[in-house]
Amino acid sequence: MLRAASQRVFIQSLAAFVHQEVTLRGWVYRLRVLGKTTFVILKDCSGEAQCVGASGVIRELHLKAEDVIEVRGSVRADQRAKSGCEVSILEVRVLNRAAANLPFNAASDIESVGLETLLEHRPLALRNPLVGDVFQVQAALLKLFREYLSSQRFTEIITSKIVASGTEGGTNLFALKYFDRIAYLAQSPQFYKEHCVAGFERVFETGHVYRAEPHATSRHLTEYYSLDVEFGFIDGPEDVIQLERELLAYIFEGLQKSYAPILDAHRKTPLPQMLNAPCWEFEECLELLKEHFHRADLTDDLDPEAERQLCQLAKDKTGSSAVFVLGFPLGARPFYTAPRDAHGAANSFDLLFEGIEITTGGQRLHRRDDLESALRGRGMEPANFESHLRMFDLGMPPHGGFAIGLERLTARILDLPNVRQAVLYPRDRYRLTP
Amino acid sequence: MLRAASQRVFIQSLAAFVHQEVTLRGWVYRLRVLGKTTFVILKDCSGEAQCVGASGVIRELHLKAEDVIEVRGSVRADQRAKSGCEVSILEVRVLNRAAANLPFNAASDIESVGLETLLEHRPLALRNPLVGDVFQVQAALLKLFREYLSSQRFTEIITSKIVASGTEGGTNLFALKYFDRIAYLAQSPQFYKEHCVAGFERVFETGHVYRAEPHATSRHLTEYYSLDVEFGFIDGPEDVIQLERELLAYIFEGLQKSYAPILDAHRKTPLPQMLNAPCWEFEECLELLKEHFHRADLTDDLDPEAERQLCQLAKDKTGSSAVFVLGFPLGARPFYTAPRDAHGAANSFDLLFEGIEITTGGQRLHRRDDLESALRGRGMEPANFESHLRMFDLGMPPHGGFAIGLERLTARILDLPNVRQAVLYPRDRYRLTP
Repeated sequence: MLRAASQRVFIQSLAAFVHQEVTLRGWVYRLRVLGKTTFVILKDCSGEAQCVGASGVIRELHLKAEDVIEVRGSVRADQRAKSGCEVSILEVRVLNRAAANLPFNAASDIESVGLETLLEHRPLALRNPLVGDVFQVQAALLKLFREYLSSQRFTEIITSKIVASGTEGGTNLFALKYFDRIAYLAQSPQFYKEHCVAGFERVFETGHVYRAEPHATSRHLTEYYSLDVEFGFIDGPEDVIQLERELLAYIFEGLQKSYAPILDAHRKTPLPQMLNAPCWEFEECLELLKEHFHRADLTDDLDPEAERQLCQLAKDKTGSSAVFVLGFPLGARPFYTAPRDAHGAANSFDLLFEGIEITTGGQRLHRRDDLESALRGRGMEPANFESHLRMFDLGMPPHGGFAIGLERLTARILDLPNVRQAVLYPRDRYRLTP
Repeated sequence: MLRAASQRVFIQSLAAFVHQEVTLRGWVYRLRVLGKTTFVILKDCSGEAQCVGASGVIRELHLKAEDVIEVRGSVRADQRAKSGCEVSILEVRVLNRAAANLPFNAASDIESVGLETLLEHRPLALRNPLVGDVFQVQAALLKLFREYLSSQRFTEIITSKIVASGTEGGTNLFALKYFDRIAYLAQSPQFYKEHCVAGFERVFETGHVYRAEPHATSRHLTEYYSLDVEFGFIDGPEDVIQLERELLAYIFEGLQKSYAPILDAHRKTPLPQMLNAPCWEFEECLELLKEHFHRADLTDDLDPEAERQLCQLAKDKTGSSAVFVLGFPLGARPFYTAPRDAHGAANSFDLLFEGIEITTGGQRLHRRDDLESALRGRGMEPANFESHLRMFDLGMPPHGGFAIGLERLTARILDLPNVRQAVLYPRDRYRLTP
């Protein structure tokens, strides 16, 4: 049972109070004066209600859109209203005034308002459904992510974001004065989640990670929210890919069930059928790109253009615009990546989703000796990684995992052109407020 | 249905495979050689199983505790076994060796192992139930926290941890080189969660916050996990307190349902009945402390000793060792705190729980004018807070909320003497690794 503070009733519950007197609280969402009658559309976190009063009385209050008010009124059934009822105003009390002359209103057609203005007026923008719904869907996505993994015996972990050194050797790190030392903000919980596999076997974490990216494109953030998964006793990267297929299928089904109207408002096509998402070898992808798009310029990695092209091919061939690419060249992947074959391919994959990479994952090396060789092979000194390598002495299963960027996934699900539209308070090279 | 990678079966599901052949994967938890028969207690994320084989065959593998193995065997019913069955070993395959001479084992009596050693061998320690269960309970607590608030229409938000200035004026902040500027790690999502109330009405966040605490006591961390709640349209702090009572009652009930044996192993008494937790005025608390403990030294705040004394009084008077203290002196609380009366009391409360403060909360000022006056009254310049104050122009309801320190709450629930025992990777004045 949803509880409101004091005697206030949520708009969602109005239908249960027909012929009764109620107290509502919320924002003036719209205001329409039609001669002697004034219609106040009141909005709270549970919905919108039409409240009707005498224009003379309401005029004296100088009500305007965005004001925060309390309405005492009697509820009557009204088939024309969305909620099935309407409220006859007995009394309006202003709880707090909004400023006059705001650059837009919560009920505005917000498409024409720039991202900068929306960010500078975040609370107001969030009351607009086109903006607010993005974060409702994001919250639901997070909930479904955790729900599925918990059902599969994964333990949620929380690992430190202040670290003594970088995971992959130290580029793009934010440095921090930590008392009399220098520390860094974590680029990824990679090492910690691997360690925890040796403890709990199956773990996930949802949390911020940091990259001091010197560019500020529509796909880069300096602080993003990473959905991290890692688990042990796998046979190979195919187990990891299959888990991600099932996880995303569960999430999309859940979103489709509860947020279909929002998805429809943002997307032209249904969400991809993830259980059908193909897995293509990297070499095969290079061939396909050559054959279909005359791309002869790619050798050891994909570029954003190639990611779009492969998603298009996947859609043409399988109906799903999501494709796993497996077997990237080992040299282009971090030192802890397990090899796929003797010819330099890695057990590492990306998930390309509607034109962009949203996941990197794979199988990791699980033997200390192999990690030491891999480090030396890249000219890195194992002694510098001793605090990490020691954990592989404590009973480390074969393991793998992946990470999904929450903002990128949200942006793709809702077809938002800029990843910043999927962050409440984005951070990039130039943005540090609000 | 719980899915394992490949054909591997989880130990939890063994009973469904009686008279069949299965493949298990896990850690050697205990090893007992009784003449010609060897018992291998195998542990995976789902449970423990007794596997029985011929000593001669197993000896050749040089198995030892903590090794990571795969067991192929046939399942037979055995009433004496915890899981109701036992596995006759057909084949053992070593997937990865643990090092010899570890300082303790997962199955060790771990009470005598120091915290330092446990932290330096985190993965191994996590396989010990006394340590691992702490984080299972913590994960469940988080899940129940989010679950309850979602059921009450709260929206999960994610706010930036890199900020341009501190929430309360700038002590104990970690400074960060942010490209060519200085930024800070957020001490609290206080401002952001208030802003989001003007967007979504009811919000919560679970995430890290940072305090450059120069001391390293058993109750302080430089990085901790804050469970933040904020909501609008309240009548006063009593609404906030009541929500926290109901939230904690829900969490404790959920823990009691799923983790009773773990709670019993750690606690001498049942968890407090939160719905009965009293709310005492600050002035009344000073009187009680004077009367019962001859404390005449307290004036504008409580100290750790007083927190313990009040919890004891609450227990004596109500049976519950949790008490809300409401009406702290306004001067000792942040500038955004709403006043309680004209005599300098604030609508601000602490929740004292089994001897320690685990929550600070209250009603906040919601009018821009009041905030500006409060700032000036404390000698602070409103212009420096303009990016925050501007949000109060956009339709800000009366609101309040609270924050719970996850580690402190976990430590109290499981009666752990040091808060570090409730953090996977603690950070303090001196600790930056692992």
